[in-house]
Amino acid sequence: MEFTVQLQTYRQRVEQALDHYLPATGTPPPRLHAAMRYSLEAGGKRLRPVLLLASADLFNAPSSAAEAAAVAIECVHTYSLIHDDLPCMDNDDLRRGRPTAHKQFDEATALLAGDALLTHAFWLLSRYSSQPTIVAGLLAELGHAAGSQQLIGGQMEDLLAEKKSGVTADELRSIHLKKTAAMISAALAMGGIVAQARPADVETLRLAGQHLGLAFQIVDDILDATADTATLGKTAGKDAKADKTTYVKLYGLDASRKLAREESDAALAALARLPGDTTFLTTLVRDMAARTN
Amino acid sequence: MEFTVQLQTYRQRVEQALDHYLPATGTPPPRLHAAMRYSLEAGGKRLRPVLLLASADLFNAPSSAAEAAAVAIECVHTYSLIHDDLPCMDNDDLRRGRPTAHKQFDEATALLAGDALLTHAFWLLSRYSSQPTIVAGLLAELGHAAGSQQLIGGQMEDLLAEKKSGVTADELRSIHLKKTAAMISAALAMGGIVAQARPADVETLRLAGQHLGLAFQIVDDILDATADTATLGKTAGKDAKADKTTYVKLYGLDASRKLAREESDAALAALARLPGDTTFLTTLVRDMAARTN
Repeated sequence: MEFTVQLQTYRQRVEQALDHYLPATGTPPPRLHAAMRYSLEAGGKRLRPVLLLASADLFNAPSSAAEAAAVAIECVHTYSLIHDDLPCMDNDDLRRGRPTAHKQFDEATALLAGDALLTHAFWLLSRYSSQPTIVAGLLAELGHAAGSQQLIGGQMEDLLAEKKSGVTADELRSIHLKKTAAMISAALAMGGIVAQARPADVETLRLAGQHLGLAFQIVDDILDATADTATLGKTAGKDAKADKTTYVKLYGLDASRKLAREESDAALAALARLPGDTTFLTTLVRDMAARTN
Repeated sequence: MEFTVQLQTYRQRVEQALDHYLPATGTPPPRLHAAMRYSLEAGGKRLRPVLLLASADLFNAPSSAAEAAAVAIECVHTYSLIHDDLPCMDNDDLRRGRPTAHKQFDEATALLAGDALLTHAFWLLSRYSSQPTIVAGLLAELGHAAGSQQLIGGQMEDLLAEKKSGVTADELRSIHLKKTAAMISAALAMGGIVAQARPADVETLRLAGQHLGLAFQIVDDILDATADTATLGKTAGKDAKADKTTYVKLYGLDASRKLAREESDAALAALARLPGDTTFLTTLVRDMAARTN
């Protein structure tokens, strides 16, 4: 199947699974569930759940087996965006071309919707209870990646870095590894766990995800500096305006592009060690490195 | 063993387990982990983890088997307090006699510390991975109780109720069932799950917890109206000041005391159907109904 068609197919599966695995519209309290769906349904690339589904397919997991886990990882990603956008954090009004959750609803509702998406993500993993070793594996993976030493820790380090001058290359790499790469790494690993892949293959998936996550974040920094708001669907030039340390600020555009390429190549090298047909994932890595939004 | 001694012993086990199962002081990023520990170490009654440990003991669970789950439920409770205290929610400066997390640190750190405690709670359940059916059971229980239709849903309903006049008795009961009783019910049920109790006994634990939770919340409303700030360790008279609908406002003091007694009695009736020595739990229910803070 052609890459773009396959990507579209994965994204459609993600959209359908999101609708299926989220509490229905109107579930009491309706305002809370409306806010959860508002943020989830804002769209976006669905990178993490697509990676999870594609990873599970490498090991011939039964179709649909990976979908609850895919929804879980998108719920965690979306919660982190809702909370990051709050006034006490990045204070952003626009996300994916629409008002952020606290602008559309209010701060309290946005806070609770974020909390609820995070909780729902973990609860969803209990859907695998007929195969409890899968539940335990997924929980360990997601709990670690989303936790205080990875996703949330990266967000904290990012906030602290904004307040000081002179963030080093090591510090920036640590922030990006935690804030972005950890969840992308977990997405690929969780696909393997759902499919009951060998631990060595799950570890290779983790490694591929780490490199892909770094590449993704460096490209994000490049796009923030070079693209316009309409193309991005979020406020462009935000980093420079906030005098934020990014790969572009630290290394310049050319060297940043080179670093992004190196990380993509490392991700591809890891993927090459996996069983199954990795064509989709390798094309996705290349596509992601060349993306314009 | 005398009740107060046994309660003290349980609380000491909780304190030791909290220290053991939380990332060490100084774990990067130190500010985030300091805020997590600051809020957890503020103390409080430790009602939920004590209930969990005592429930597991009914079924002769191996000593220490229930401790990670007990820490998990206290982490969820503490996260909910941190987020409830934020300016966009209840905007409270004092909690357990100390500055709230966002006053001691700042709003962003408090938000992230809450997120991190919630995530850590779920991750902790993966510590039971050598018995994956326990992991799956605990995850389903905690995920449901802490989710958008229970704990977080109750908080949302509570916020919406503050903005309207004329909250009905049914609405108030729904808020308290979700916001308070769900997690107390889960605490007792999780003790049974850790101990691999029969499903019928886990269901009885849930029921006992629901009644205990309602009794607890009604007594809370009574204390807010009758006790002073020093005794409570949190701002007293807050409900009346905010013109908040409480059991006291809706029913008056005498009828509220009667309702609290009825719920306590229902909890005791459920506990009487359980195996093992329920003396500690029944004394705790009676003690809780007579508490002054």
